[in-house]
Amino acid sequence: MAKFDIDTIRHSSAHLMAQAISRLYPNESVQFGVGPVIEHGFYYDVQMTSTLNEEDLVKIEDMMKTIIKEGLPIERKVMARDEAVDFFKKEGQDLKVELIEAIPEGEEVSCYQQGEFIDLCRGPHVESTSQLPQGFKLLSIAGAYWRGDEKNQMLQRIYAVCFQDRKVLKKHLMMLEEAKKRDHRKLGKELELFHFEASSPGAPFFMPKGAFVYNELIEYIRKLYRIYEYDEVITPQVLDSELWHTSGHYEHYKENMFFSKVDEREYAVKPMNCPCHMLMFKHYKYSYRDLPMRYADFGRLHRYEKAGALAGLTRVRTFCQDDAHIFLALAQVQEEIQRTMKMILTAYEMFDFQNVKVNLSTRPEKKAGSDETWDIAEKALKDALDNSGQEYFIKEGDGAFYGPKIDIDVADALGRYHQLGTIQLDFQLPDRFDLKFTTQEGGEERPVVIHRALLGSLERFFGVYLEHVAGVFPFWLAPEQAIIVPVNLDIHGEYARKLQKELFSKGYRVKVDDRNESMGYKTRQIQKAKVPFMLVIGDREMESGSVSVRKHGEKKTFTWSNDDLFSRFNELNSKKIPAEL
Amino acid sequence: MAKFDIDTIRHSSAHLMAQAISRLYPNESVQFGVGPVIEHGFYYDVQMTSTLNEEDLVKIEDMMKTIIKEGLPIERKVMARDEAVDFFKKEGQDLKVELIEAIPEGEEVSCYQQGEFIDLCRGPHVESTSQLPQGFKLLSIAGAYWRGDEKNQMLQRIYAVCFQDRKVLKKHLMMLEEAKKRDHRKLGKELELFHFEASSPGAPFFMPKGAFVYNELIEYIRKLYRIYEYDEVITPQVLDSELWHTSGHYEHYKENMFFSKVDEREYAVKPMNCPCHMLMFKHYKYSYRDLPMRYADFGRLHRYEKAGALAGLTRVRTFCQDDAHIFLALAQVQEEIQRTMKMILTAYEMFDFQNVKVNLSTRPEKKAGSDETWDIAEKALKDALDNSGQEYFIKEGDGAFYGPKIDIDVADALGRYHQLGTIQLDFQLPDRFDLKFTTQEGGEERPVVIHRALLGSLERFFGVYLEHVAGVFPFWLAPEQAIIVPVNLDIHGEYARKLQKELFSKGYRVKVDDRNESMGYKTRQIQKAKVPFMLVIGDREMESGSVSVRKHGEKKTFTWSNDDLFSRFNELNSKKIPAEL
Repeated sequence: MAKFDIDTIRHSSAHLMAQAISRLYPNESVQFGVGPVIEHGFYYDVQMTSTLNEEDLVKIEDMMKTIIKEGLPIERKVMARDEAVDFFKKEGQDLKVELIEAIPEGEEVSCYQQGEFIDLCRGPHVESTSQLPQGFKLLSIAGAYWRGDEKNQMLQRIYAVCFQDRKVLKKHLMMLEEAKKRDHRKLGKELELFHFEASSPGAPFFMPKGAFVYNELIEYIRKLYRIYEYDEVITPQVLDSELWHTSGHYEHYKENMFFSKVDEREYAVKPMNCPCHMLMFKHYKYSYRDLPMRYADFGRLHRYEKAGALAGLTRVRTFCQDDAHIFLALAQVQEEIQRTMKMILTAYEMFDFQNVKVNLSTRPEKKAGSDETWDIAEKALKDALDNSGQEYFIKEGDGAFYGPKIDIDVADALGRYHQLGTIQLDFQLPDRFDLKFTTQEGGEERPVVIHRALLGSLERFFGVYLEHVAGVFPFWLAPEQAIIVPVNLDIHGEYARKLQKELFSKGYRVKVDDRNESMGYKTRQIQKAKVPFMLVIGDREMESGSVSVRKHGEKKTFTWSNDDLFSRFNELNSKKIPAEL
Repeated sequence: MAKFDIDTIRHSSAHLMAQAISRLYPNESVQFGVGPVIEHGFYYDVQMTSTLNEEDLVKIEDMMKTIIKEGLPIERKVMARDEAVDFFKKEGQDLKVELIEAIPEGEEVSCYQQGEFIDLCRGPHVESTSQLPQGFKLLSIAGAYWRGDEKNQMLQRIYAVCFQDRKVLKKHLMMLEEAKKRDHRKLGKELELFHFEASSPGAPFFMPKGAFVYNELIEYIRKLYRIYEYDEVITPQVLDSELWHTSGHYEHYKENMFFSKVDEREYAVKPMNCPCHMLMFKHYKYSYRDLPMRYADFGRLHRYEKAGALAGLTRVRTFCQDDAHIFLALAQVQEEIQRTMKMILTAYEMFDFQNVKVNLSTRPEKKAGSDETWDIAEKALKDALDNSGQEYFIKEGDGAFYGPKIDIDVADALGRYHQLGTIQLDFQLPDRFDLKFTTQEGGEERPVVIHRALLGSLERFFGVYLEHVAGVFPFWLAPEQAIIVPVNLDIHGEYARKLQKELFSKGYRVKVDDRNESMGYKTRQIQKAKVPFMLVIGDREMESGSVSVRKHGEKKTFTWSNDDLFSRFNELNSKKIPAEL
């Protein structure tokens, strides 16, 4: 089966599914829409009278396997466009007719036939249904408007995963199972980190534990800012539309902005920090000696997203970024990009992301700035990446119109890649805001601007990272680092509280569980809350000045003297400080 | 002169000024509007042809002193309303006529006469112009619409300060001079802390140094939160108007809110955090064991203010508060208020505010909640204040309609009082959101809510504090703590940078001034920037491992060994940690 690539297999499997449905529902006028290949599998949109359920999916799977066994040859047939229209009309496939009618008149149309089933398709396909592997599974059914237009009829979309064999399928299904357990929306609720309310779609409420983690992420980034010489600023959130005209956001991004009218003036709630930083740079007179100038801003941003597109923390209407804008001379770009790459990779190590994918996107067809400037900029980016020793991929023509960029994706514990970091060169905004700095010779030069983010949206990062660690935060980031459980409240309670106070004064986040509940109940609760350490105190521990320690996720317990405890906690906590400090 | 209170003196001095103006401009039809007593003095609104300038004010002052010397008796005259109308009409005082016509017909009108000058007035006044002190000064002239209505004519308003004698006047004028120097808007620019842009009226841009101080204020408050067991949360900024109807803000506060319409829903940018915290409390099921529950929130707020009312950081359209809402049982109120008072006073000590004024405001006529609940609440507040040992004043009937409150004012270095802290009991919001907690007996009870702020608006506090310290931040809060100046860059530069690195790694904010400028120039620049320490390094210092230290505002220099420097800096920096930690 290795002679066909996975996309061909997935595509042929989509036809296979359609054929199975046709056979299983002979008395319904089943119509097929589109059935494309997607990541990990395919889907097909179907119009039929029955509403499919999970049991139906199993029946369809079985029929698909039967057809594989039948070993039907798959043959390509070419028809004239009008011939194809007639054919599919006769077959009652009105949706296909619509698709064909969009093809220019006089052109040929290709179809594929396997046994009694024929489908409009460009191909390629496998040669026989017997060549298709059984590494597929029909996962779910969802409603989808025909051609994505809510004015059209609603079809049933059947999603399937499909791989070259059952072993890979099994691995993928286990990953999906694990991903479900780690779903950050589920963990967010269970761990009381955040939740949503109907009154603010896409705007999370971070409860105390979630807010703690959120703020610690910011604190960590601030430490990097200290090392890498960034200056944090605080800028307004509501600014006159005039400014967004100057920046170009009004023209290009209006649909995603919130507006408010006051005193006959139109204001926009900021979707990005850039224009504020442009104003700041313009406000003072800077010289070459001041560059690079690095403004960092954790300002809250608001971007409109359709209610239907919102999803947990990964797709929200409001978020903060670990956003910065660097103002510098073109000649300084290479060194600065190298620095920034180092900073980004340092940040990711901290969160234990092992695999990083770096993409360099070069000039697109429609672009601002001269080819000469682009030459210099692209070379600077390439040289910087070469010097960083980091492997990278080039996406030709994929840059923004205002400059080339580097995107950084990281793989989470389940191997799923997420784009976090970005470094974008910008020749446009300095122009639009007419920014200048004084050169060494006393003349004036236009600075280049670098937009860059490390973790990106903190909300999104929170969601990604929560799934990455499956809710088990590292010690330095855990909102509760340890729970002390006295075996007997009356006998060991006071001692436990004394220990808690000592740990508190050393800066740790430790509580005493003094509820009137059984040890078994408390243990289960603490495990469920994913607190890194449970410290049990009974007679023996009280006498010897020690604690019985149980780490999260482990069944064994250790005995640590209190001194051991302090030094181990100290070592674990020190991880929150970058090595450079 | 002690037989008249200062308000009477100020009022009579206003008449004195009007008389002086009448004498000086006999050929103009000078008309007088209103001339009330204000804090520290009085003003009078005048309609006349000449546009007064500062020289004219001196002439008017001189004439006032002449009239004092004349010792004109001041006599009260009562006229019938219609008689008064006729009299002032004949005098050409049309503005006065308008005022009299607002008095019900048939009533009597009182006037005061001194020499040739007669003015409509309720009194009381001194008995002779000779009884008036010379402790006055005419300060400034401003435009003011007649009766505050911009559709009316513009009058000239002359502001004056007025005290019982010249000594007090002199002291006050010196204070005004000092206040001008300390104006936070002026200091904010000079020290590059913050500035404003036309695109966002009332919304400051905090530059790096300002943002540093701002964030350190938050960090300091967070330390107090750790001690006093507050839980910080992060809540949305843009919420459905429905919520603001529930909270009552839509009804009572709509004029001050920013709205945005999206997807046919009306959203408001939050002017307060309270409704978000109500939703959070409601989201989970809390029991008596969880109370008091303290949600703290540095969420950014937006409140519309008229463009004309905006003033530096003290009157803005956007700010954050060190805001918290405490949910608790009525029985817990007294203890919690006592705790909160302690917390507030701890916070103020830190910022070296010596004089604190505490006001307790009790039930107003129009109020929510039963008298019984108010009895309990007011007693709890009084008992808490009594136990705190803090002197306080009672403002009868001055409470909010939703509950009694405590306001805390502090005096700055110039003796000006500013309200910073507030503790407000609220019976209303828990009702409106139908909040409940489970009692020990398993029943349900409505919690009480305490709104409380320590520093209040951080923007406003920033402004007040900046003036309080005249721009000289204490060591722990200074954005730059020291500047190292090598006497000769070639010889001492490297050593200076090494010392800088060592101080940086210890957490200090220290820079090397390696500009090619003279020592005198650098010294003046460092003084102007109000950096706490200037550390000079020459041959002697390099050899002995020491620094020549000059503190801000002092002319003397000391020699400190590097070890001394580290331990002194350490001691100074430790002040940012509350004693309890």
